[in-house]
Amino acid sequence: MNRRTFLKTVPALAVMAGTTSTSAQDLQPITLVKPQKDGGKSVLAALQERKTTRDISEKQLPPQVLSNLLWAAFGVNREKASFGKPGRTAASASNSQEIDLYVALPEGVYLYEAVPHCLKPVVTGDFRRRSGRRSAAKAPVNIFYVVDRTRYDEGPGQPDRNIGNPEVQKSYYYVATGLIASNVYLFAASQGLAAHFHNCDKQNTAKEFKLRPEQSVLFSQTVGYPA
Amino acid sequence: MNRRTFLKTVPALAVMAGTTSTSAQDLQPITLVKPQKDGGKSVLAALQERKTTRDISEKQLPPQVLSNLLWAAFGVNREKASFGKPGRTAASASNSQEIDLYVALPEGVYLYEAVPHCLKPVVTGDFRRRSGRRSAAKAPVNIFYVVDRTRYDEGPGQPDRNIGNPEVQKSYYYVATGLIASNVYLFAASQGLAAHFHNCDKQNTAKEFKLRPEQSVLFSQTVGYPA
Repeated sequence: MNRRTFLKTVPALAVMAGTTSTSAQDLQPITLVKPQKDGGKSVLAALQERKTTRDISEKQLPPQVLSNLLWAAFGVNREKASFGKPGRTAASASNSQEIDLYVALPEGVYLYEAVPHCLKPVVTGDFRRRSGRRSAAKAPVNIFYVVDRTRYDEGPGQPDRNIGNPEVQKSYYYVATGLIASNVYLFAASQGLAAHFHNCDKQNTAKEFKLRPEQSVLFSQTVGYPA
Repeated sequence: MNRRTFLKTVPALAVMAGTTSTSAQDLQPITLVKPQKDGGKSVLAALQERKTTRDISEKQLPPQVLSNLLWAAFGVNREKASFGKPGRTAASASNSQEIDLYVALPEGVYLYEAVPHCLKPVVTGDFRRRSGRRSAAKAPVNIFYVVDRTRYDEGPGQPDRNIGNPEVQKSYYYVATGLIASNVYLFAASQGLAAHFHNCDKQNTAKEFKLRPEQSVLFSQTVGYPA
């Protein structure tokens, strides 16, 4: 399918939405259903199925699957862990929890808030294609990995004397991204879903998501059913 | 326990070995038993158990568990994937497979070779404490994450035009480390093992492992039974 054919087959709203964003006021918060904590393949069986799948169908994820996916990625699995914060399914340096998941659905972009396990509106419009892959433009979910470097400002409780060094921070937040992305890959493999971690349009996405200067878009991961 | 007490309680050989390395000729390759591809908790149940555990017992891992651990981390799960290479349990940029696992066991350090699924001797001696944590010094396994930047030299088949950029490479190899480390965390959680991903002594370790200039030690992960 060439680009012209592709554009013709996409509804006009979806084509426009990537360029004409409106405020998040039009979007309603999404309360995610309670995530399931068991079911699907074993870790070893999921590792055997783990792979990158680029061809992903347009079929939407049922609410329970979306909830499970986000909890698996970086949900709360312990009320208290270290440094006065809850524990998450993925580790982070000194439990800084520096990565935020910006979740692009067809109608808009939401921030995943792990403690209440809900999606908070960020911007209305279809930004799924900002994940940079044409194949991702119509997949049901694109997760954008965004670092917030202010999470490293910990004050006296911070045990890592190098955490103020930007090069050290870089090593931490990219590793943290990989730790979450692997949870997504294994959850997908355990449930027969398809996943694809990849580059994205970092500069434009940061503007469109109205990020602060201390935040940066790092990578993106597309999830859905295999096409 | 202070450092003096700690040193007194460790056998003399183990104390010496971190500083007096001998050649790898004394070590024999280890053929790993065939990894199991199922068993243990589901992915969702393992995510609920995922946490960092710093207190790890001295108890050694049985051969089957060591084999399963390394396969889970970054083993081959498909004979052919992309760019003429096999598929691995963790993704990497353009399937560059740029991360090597250097596995420190009590008697020496080995390189994990994924295709034959074996451990190749690197250096004799006990380098487990180079993972930088006293608690890790006697844990049965410390995995050192080492990047080999020559894996990005792909020639005409390389589809990523930015892969020669050192900053881009950095983002790739730290994410790749996180992807593998998460596999280790989830495998550990699925089997009741303890795992701890952390900094390590990068400079000395690189010398002791006789790495080439294109290689760097990034992080380390300790695995064993909970103490």
